[in-house]
Amino acid sequence: MCHAKQQDGLKMLNVRFITLVLGLLLVVEGVFMSLSAFVAAIYGEYDLPYHLISAGGCISLGGVIALAFRKAKKNIGKREGYVIVSMVWVVFSLFGLLPFWLSRAIPSFTDAFFETMSGFTTTGSSILNDIEALPHGLLFWRSLIQWLGGMGIIVLSLAILPVLGVGGMQLFVAEVPGPVPDKLHPRITETAKRLWGIYLLFTLIETGLLWIGGMNFFDAICHSFTTMATGGYSTKQASVAYFSSPFIQYVIILFMFIAGANFALSYSAMHGKFRKVFENEELRYYFGFVVAFSLIVGVVLEFTEVGLGFEKAFRDGLFQVVSIITTTGYATADYLLWVPFLSVIIFLLMFFGGSAGSTGGGIKIVRIVLLLKNSYYELKRLVHPHAVIPVRFNSRAVAPAIINNIVAFIVIYMLVVGISMIVMSIMQFDLPTSLGAVATSIGNIGPGLGEVGPAMNFYHVPAFGKWFLSFLMLIGRLELFTVILLFSPIFWKE
Amino acid sequence: MCHAKQQDGLKMLNVRFITLVLGLLLVVEGVFMSLSAFVAAIYGEYDLPYHLISAGGCISLGGVIALAFRKAKKNIGKREGYVIVSMVWVVFSLFGLLPFWLSRAIPSFTDAFFETMSGFTTTGSSILNDIEALPHGLLFWRSLIQWLGGMGIIVLSLAILPVLGVGGMQLFVAEVPGPVPDKLHPRITETAKRLWGIYLLFTLIETGLLWIGGMNFFDAICHSFTTMATGGYSTKQASVAYFSSPFIQYVIILFMFIAGANFALSYSAMHGKFRKVFENEELRYYFGFVVAFSLIVGVVLEFTEVGLGFEKAFRDGLFQVVSIITTTGYATADYLLWVPFLSVIIFLLMFFGGSAGSTGGGIKIVRIVLLLKNSYYELKRLVHPHAVIPVRFNSRAVAPAIINNIVAFIVIYMLVVGISMIVMSIMQFDLPTSLGAVATSIGNIGPGLGEVGPAMNFYHVPAFGKWFLSFLMLIGRLELFTVILLFSPIFWKE
Repeated sequence: MCHAKQQDGLKMLNVRFITLVLGLLLVVEGVFMSLSAFVAAIYGEYDLPYHLISAGGCISLGGVIALAFRKAKKNIGKREGYVIVSMVWVVFSLFGLLPFWLSRAIPSFTDAFFETMSGFTTTGSSILNDIEALPHGLLFWRSLIQWLGGMGIIVLSLAILPVLGVGGMQLFVAEVPGPVPDKLHPRITETAKRLWGIYLLFTLIETGLLWIGGMNFFDAICHSFTTMATGGYSTKQASVAYFSSPFIQYVIILFMFIAGANFALSYSAMHGKFRKVFENEELRYYFGFVVAFSLIVGVVLEFTEVGLGFEKAFRDGLFQVVSIITTTGYATADYLLWVPFLSVIIFLLMFFGGSAGSTGGGIKIVRIVLLLKNSYYELKRLVHPHAVIPVRFNSRAVAPAIINNIVAFIVIYMLVVGISMIVMSIMQFDLPTSLGAVATSIGNIGPGLGEVGPAMNFYHVPAFGKWFLSFLMLIGRLELFTVILLFSPIFWKE
Repeated sequence: MCHAKQQDGLKMLNVRFITLVLGLLLVVEGVFMSLSAFVAAIYGEYDLPYHLISAGGCISLGGVIALAFRKAKKNIGKREGYVIVSMVWVVFSLFGLLPFWLSRAIPSFTDAFFETMSGFTTTGSSILNDIEALPHGLLFWRSLIQWLGGMGIIVLSLAILPVLGVGGMQLFVAEVPGPVPDKLHPRITETAKRLWGIYLLFTLIETGLLWIGGMNFFDAICHSFTTMATGGYSTKQASVAYFSSPFIQYVIILFMFIAGANFALSYSAMHGKFRKVFENEELRYYFGFVVAFSLIVGVVLEFTEVGLGFEKAFRDGLFQVVSIITTTGYATADYLLWVPFLSVIIFLLMFFGGSAGSTGGGIKIVRIVLLLKNSYYELKRLVHPHAVIPVRFNSRAVAPAIINNIVAFIVIYMLVVGISMIVMSIMQFDLPTSLGAVATSIGNIGPGLGEVGPAMNFYHVPAFGKWFLSFLMLIGRLELFTVILLFSPIFWKE
């Protein structure tokens, strides 16, 4: 009975169109792989054939699939949306790992999958013990997958998730520039084009600035890719600490901050609508949190880390706060070596996350602010039970349905964190390591606590743990509901 | 302007009646102190005069206050309710510490306050390095204050908080046996009498069983006091591990479970309304959680702790799960020495808490279940956007206002935990210790993690930390809103 229902569900799902979309996207992935083949060719390193094989494989397989399913009916609904979105990241990771795996740069399939999923989800957790040993082509591909992941997230969070009604994101539909046609497809295309333009532009500007600051062009472009994606992969084992130039570090801070802000606001700013930007409540809170926590961390570092110097203390504090709150995960210092007060603050910042409509992961500022406001109003309602006090955001009343959606998001987030801690602890990881690994994976940050802190990596995590954390990165990246619904009978019934 | 408003607020507050109530309650506290003086007299130990002085002081001061304010107008509202509830625990602790402090058994005022607040809030965290060195009168008083705290909580959670509208507790107004008159006072009195009867009865039965099981009468009554209050103070340094008899430990498990269940249900059961008990959803989940987690912990203990034996593994698992979930905090084993998997589970259980209407603290089962249900229904709403699916509990639809109240409770709980972790880390406590100390204090449990684990105590926490944790115990015990509102301008305006 239940099985029959499931089959009905599957029958109704437009599987042919989903396959077509995935085939086309695979071609796109192959095209981008050709870019890294081009880089490998320039440097003339051993990885060139593997890029070519991978790119060729993706393009031909994707092309064949697309041709075979080209006549698929285009009538798709929400459910196809959920399936496509979840599948894209998995398929991209399964094929994106090929250059690493085929070249034996990452000989283990599990490790290669972890590294690639960590890339596409813009997490930045790594299993590499010697990043600099990788040839340039692979380093470029490793940065590029983060950039592509960021590109995907911008469209996802500003055009697709609001339509699917995930986690209160419908709040931002009205914020997105562009026309609001009644069909899904043209709206997504139009929004995507505008936002990708900005994303590309910022990437180019950052590359230029980093180059001017003294980075070589290769490192500059790789770091711009992973900054704008709030990904955090570096071409250096020491991460951004390798580039000791204050100018370079401040440039990265600035662009991490931009990448952690709503790209729709950047669009408004570039079209002169500054009023709209300055009046945006999420941006104000985001800026406020960054300033407040950076000052606290900077001042405490100045007093506790002897001989650091005022500017460096301030810069380290600012860098680490922005890196964690935007879920980028670059390191200029090991926060686990700081006094407990500071490592606790960094830990708590792992639950903030960037703005909605940014490439940042995590819970997101808007959700936190709305829940805090809602709690404050609840206290008011206790004193004045008959007053009707709606929660307001950006000067508009927020519908209770949206608050409820956000509440469900946070509850599921915490539930997943709790259960995942138990799963990690089965592998004998202690409480801080379990908690840190889970928080950094679901929040798409990168470094964790304990044995997976910023000076360590995820190489020593058992294979099961790597697959599990990859799954956490995926559900975190896709705002939980998207993936969790697929595993729920609710989705397949009727 | 703001100050003037505050004064208006204060003027409107019926301070005279509040003072009268506190004076009367102080007399009550003094009367109970006389009981411990009686115990001290029986044993003929050095602490007798200090009990007498404290009891005499409380009775005379309280009596004078009550006489002076006996003509206070009795027109009180919600705001007076909030003030009285919050003040009672503070006043009781300030006077309840006298026997410990005057007798120099606890020479530091801070320590004495911490120990007493930990008692009245039924937390059970201790600063004592040698519990057994205390004379019997003081050990009795230490157990009695937990029992009194539990008594206070029963009335608070089943009769007062629902009327004040705190944290979704209005859900249970209809559950409370007895008439529902339109005035606050008779309702509270009537409910209190019935529930205290059951509380006393269970205490007597447990005392009898423990005595039969081989405890001496003194230890039996002290442990019954602190079991029924889910307090967790023991008369032994080794806690319940001292009493190795399986019978004694199973008796304590049973009564911890009863104390962590809604007392209104015990009332129903004793009046033959078993159907009402078995159909109660919170009780089912509570029972389900206890069984599931006990089995997991027991089985893993059996396989990881060599030579423990099947029965002992099962008993240790059951005991520790029930002790933490009911927020009692007795120990028969040090869970920090167990494999990480088990200590992570125990840590997560710290965020469950007993049932509403029990003496247990923490978030409470009903809130967790309602939030999980709400999230599940939200997933349903995503798939069927036009379906109206109210959250149901005990076969009745739960009003969205109550869900929102619970959401505010959890958000404020997590916010307080986060901020408090930062505060604890300032005192150089590492992340597990900070998190453990905060979770165990706000949840009114007792033992924490790291440096405040079950084999340690809170003696080494700096004075500021002791006052801070005492404050956390208080706001946790009073379901957050009660105390937090008092510190909020919302409360004092208008």
